[in-house]
Amino acid sequence: MGILKPSSRDDAFFQLLADSARQCVAAAGLLTQMLAADTTEREVLLPRLKDIEHEADEATHAIIRKVNTSFVTPFDHGDIVELAASLDDCTDAIEAAGQMVVLYRMNGLMPDITAQMEVIVRMAQLTADAMPRLATMKELPEYWVEINRLENEGDVIYRTLLRDLFGGAVTDPIEVIKHKDIIERLEQAADCFETVAHRVESIVIKES
Amino acid sequence: MGILKPSSRDDAFFQLLADSARQCVAAAGLLTQMLAADTTEREVLLPRLKDIEHEADEATHAIIRKVNTSFVTPFDHGDIVELAASLDDCTDAIEAAGQMVVLYRMNGLMPDITAQMEVIVRMAQLTADAMPRLATMKELPEYWVEINRLENEGDVIYRTLLRDLFGGAVTDPIEVIKHKDIIERLEQAADCFETVAHRVESIVIKES
Amino acid sequence: MGILKPSSRDDAFFQLLADSARQCVAAAGLLTQMLAADTTEREVLLPRLKDIEHEADEATHAIIRKVNTSFVTPFDHGDIVELAASLDDCTDAIEAAGQMVVLYRMNGLMPDITAQMEVIVRMAQLTADAMPRLATMKELPEYWVEINRLENEGDVIYRTLLRDLFGGAVTDPIEVIKHKDIIERLEQAADCFETVAHRVESIVIKES
Repeated sequence: MGILKPSSRDDAFFQLLADSARQCVAAAGLLTQMLAADTTEREVLLPRLKDIEHEADEATHAIIRKVNTSFVTPFDHGDIVELAASLDDCTDAIEAAGQMVVLYRMNGLMPDITAQMEVIVRMAQLTADAMPRLATMKELPEYWVEINRLENEGDVIYRTLLRDLFGGAVTDPIEVIKHKDIIERLEQAADCFETVAHRVESIVIKES
Repeated sequence: MGILKPSSRDDAFFQLLADSARQCVAAAGLLTQMLAADTTEREVLLPRLKDIEHEADEATHAIIRKVNTSFVTPFDHGDIVELAASLDDCTDAIEAAGQMVVLYRMNGLMPDITAQMEVIVRMAQLTADAMPRLATMKELPEYWVEINRLENEGDVIYRTLLRDLFGGAVTDPIEVIKHKDIIERLEQAADCFETVAHRVESIVIKES
Repeated sequence: MGILKPSSRDDAFFQLLADSARQCVAAAGLLTQMLAADTTEREVLLPRLKDIEHEADEATHAIIRKVNTSFVTPFDHGDIVELAASLDDCTDAIEAAGQMVVLYRMNGLMPDITAQMEVIVRMAQLTADAMPRLATMKELPEYWVEINRLENEGDVIYRTLLRDLFGGAVTDPIEVIKHKDIIERLEQAADCFETVAHRVESIVIKES
């Protein structure tokens, strides 16, 4: 409620949220690289993905510490914490998918995994672009409408992958379990970005 | 907090929430029909399920838009948005189960799936009946107690299904994966209705 | 906000939360016993686990009723309800894992399951120790930092278990599905304790 008057002090919050979102972009970029790599290269890339996940944790705790020590915050304390937590969940989900790709020593990933991953990369980028706009509360509906559209696009790809997987693309049951797990984890990562968009929408509603 | 004095303006919120809950009822009814149908018929019915899911999305956004443009709301802005979102999750979960039934070209569904689905149908109906009662905050404990009871009933059916599934009712591992997925998605749909009931309980506590 | 002045009336809330957390400890202890037992003994122990889960439900409802009838609560009504609900989720998750161990008639559990379970036992104990400290809001960061550390430790064990499982420790695909399910449910139980810690952190931030 009330008129939002972002000050230079407030800006630090949006910078920290943007930092966290940039870790999502970095994680999505690295996972894209890992999916295209062979199993040996993936193991080399994995520690960098873990580092990004760790940096995202740091960014999240920096936000929480700042909320903790600020009398004035640009919007409700709890909302900032929840938004930061949901951004962190995105990076966690991408890292978890990367861990599984290595752990399962995945060979012959289904080609549409690339399309599923591209949707996540675009969601991450849009999220990173949107965070600084929280300072002015402008052009945010465009962001969440596009995230919702991408989530639907991701859903269609996800279902196509499952149909192909169970339609005979993979026949060894243990391989089917592994592929299904990777596909579902990428779908969960996409869902995490949708949750971030829902939180942004909810904040905009409260503040307007 | 304070005494709730619902006005005619407030009533629109309860109507919109009831609209969304009616989409849950419609989705549960259609999925019941689909489970009883053969694979060809199911493909014919699926687009109607997708339409219901889309209408539920519209109902949810109508609620959010109304919250957005209303100065006075019957209870906390954020609580209405979260309640609407959790109702939408119910329809989404039912639709997702329907998508999987078609996608997996399920044959020979286990008979107890019908019992599991009946619990969901009753949860949806109770939820739709309860939404208008938010206007008066009356007879709501009966609703959430009964939802909790049904959720427990659904749990027992879910576990029986899993025991039978792994007890030899299905022997092909890939078929086991598919059946387990359908059974779990229906269990998740039941959980979504429990979340709605928890949110209603939480709102009643806040407002009382 | 404001200075927290816990009175004797407030103390009852922390006692009730501690009661609920003690059910988590009891459930974790019993599940540890069940994992070490044979299939016949497990079936004998399961009803006691269900009783604990039921007592945790009672504790949760006692908290909600008390919130409902208290004009003054030590912190925000909704936060108490959510904290109580997340504690209840921990016991539910442990009970659900126990149900599955019995239902799947698990034989030859992987040895590292014991290590995974030990992490959960320690998380439950730390949580029960922390609840009374909510009265003074002291020494809580130590609690959530240690929970986060344990959650990471649990993650590593979880991934090792999955690597071994898919690395040939179990070869029958249907057995792989069952083991994976148990391992994932224990991981979910650990995640539930992390959620409790996040809620505590969020309450401390709000109140400070």
